[in-house]
Amino acid sequence: MNQGRLTVVGLGPGDPRWLTPATAEALSAATDLVGYGPYLARAPEVPDQRRHASDNRVEVERARLALELAAQGRRVAVVSGGDPGVFAMAAAVFEALETGDPAWRKLEVRVEPGVTAMLAAAARVGAPLGGDFCALSLSDNLKPWDVIEARLRAALGADFVLALYNPISSTRPWQLRTALTIAAKIRGPNTPTIFARAVGRPDERIAVLDLADADPSTADMATLVIIGASTTRRIEREAGHAPYIYTPRFYGAGR
Amino acid sequence: MNQGRLTVVGLGPGDPRWLTPATAEALSAATDLVGYGPYLARAPEVPDQRRHASDNRVEVERARLALELAAQGRRVAVVSGGDPGVFAMAAAVFEALETGDPAWRKLEVRVEPGVTAMLAAAARVGAPLGGDFCALSLSDNLKPWDVIEARLRAALGADFVLALYNPISSTRPWQLRTALTIAAKIRGPNTPTIFARAVGRPDERIAVLDLADADPSTADMATLVIIGASTTRRIEREAGHAPYIYTPRFYGAGR
Repeated sequence: MNQGRLTVVGLGPGDPRWLTPATAEALSAATDLVGYGPYLARAPEVPDQRRHASDNRVEVERARLALELAAQGRRVAVVSGGDPGVFAMAAAVFEALETGDPAWRKLEVRVEPGVTAMLAAAARVGAPLGGDFCALSLSDNLKPWDVIEARLRAALGADFVLALYNPISSTRPWQLRTALTIAAKIRGPNTPTIFARAVGRPDERIAVLDLADADPSTADMATLVIIGASTTRRIEREAGHAPYIYTPRFYGAGR
Repeated sequence: MNQGRLTVVGLGPGDPRWLTPATAEALSAATDLVGYGPYLARAPEVPDQRRHASDNRVEVERARLALELAAQGRRVAVVSGGDPGVFAMAAAVFEALETGDPAWRKLEVRVEPGVTAMLAAAARVGAPLGGDFCALSLSDNLKPWDVIEARLRAALGADFVLALYNPISSTRPWQLRTALTIAAKIRGPNTPTIFARAVGRPDERIAVLDLADADPSTADMATLVIIGASTTRRIEREAGHAPYIYTPRFYGAGR
């Protein structure tokens, strides 16, 4: 029997030097790549490899195609940006696997971890994720806004640092402004806030702001937003250098 | 002037194939490595490189040494496991920088992102972090237990997936049991729970459990614990294969 396999990989946020050797191996060993077109374009060229590009709206169909190809004996890599397990393709593959052809459960499905966007965004400014933190997608395409808002309020109330994925898009224009308004009411207006766009790509843009000054219109689909905890600190530097932002490891009486 | 620099890097959770090329470059360019001994032992050998090993209890002293060496013109890499910004050395470096010699603010301090333990643990079992999630350290060395418990309850109440770092140690024997008891009261006893120990290392051990069956005495300092959300699912497979665990991207009415 021709034993197909499926590996779900992430390319990291942008800089090819963040792509792990394990992911590079999986990409070069694959007969077929399946993924959103711009991600496939970032994967190194491999002779005779078939590439199945799709747009960014059809994750489960894309996952089904990948599982079908693997069931036919192909060695398939499903390609995400960042880490494939964080707001990316791995969950879609398992959704498709659970609801699809029972034979798919016999396939070897592996996930390779990667560098997710919040880690790269945090690294660019210092260590804002140095304390406890939550990762929350602001997209209400797949969950109701009241769930998102309840999670946002819970995380803010318990003083977690927040990493907001999918903060805004042309079809979701108001969610980020609402989230920033809620955050400003619960945390102080001077809370360090980071808008990190396209980290590691040529069009990277990093802004370190006070929460009260964060303007949602400067964010887009490629932006990752970090909102500090009450303890998150700013270290000023000489003129022309952005401050460092970090969250101390200690909290309250724990110093 | 001899321009020193300091880069804070993470080796990933264990498998050397998860060490990014950017981190490998920073390690090989460094004249001095500073870090916890077992991490330094994992860094590839470089001729003439000085290695300053310490135990795992003196993060800020270690950070100060690194900053001093950089101020003397050395090219220093501070070495963590995982990602240096997540419960690791980057925050300690900025704590030391903020409270130390003002001249240190003129140094070039960079952080290189890496693969943090929860991403590798999640990848091993499927995609349990496929929805919103929180990362919480159970160590009360640096913050009071009541803060940890409040964060735990907030994250459980809002139905985040939980990744618990530093769950247990010889000096912190009861915290994990308390956390699991609280979690079992708020989530169901069948909630998928993962104990992932030493992921990517030869002594890796992964257990997929029901929350009610999770036994804290099987965890140690090298264990990362993931507790699913109410929506986290288990896909059973044929005998001899661990189930896949994943959290769907959709939630409630958002399907």
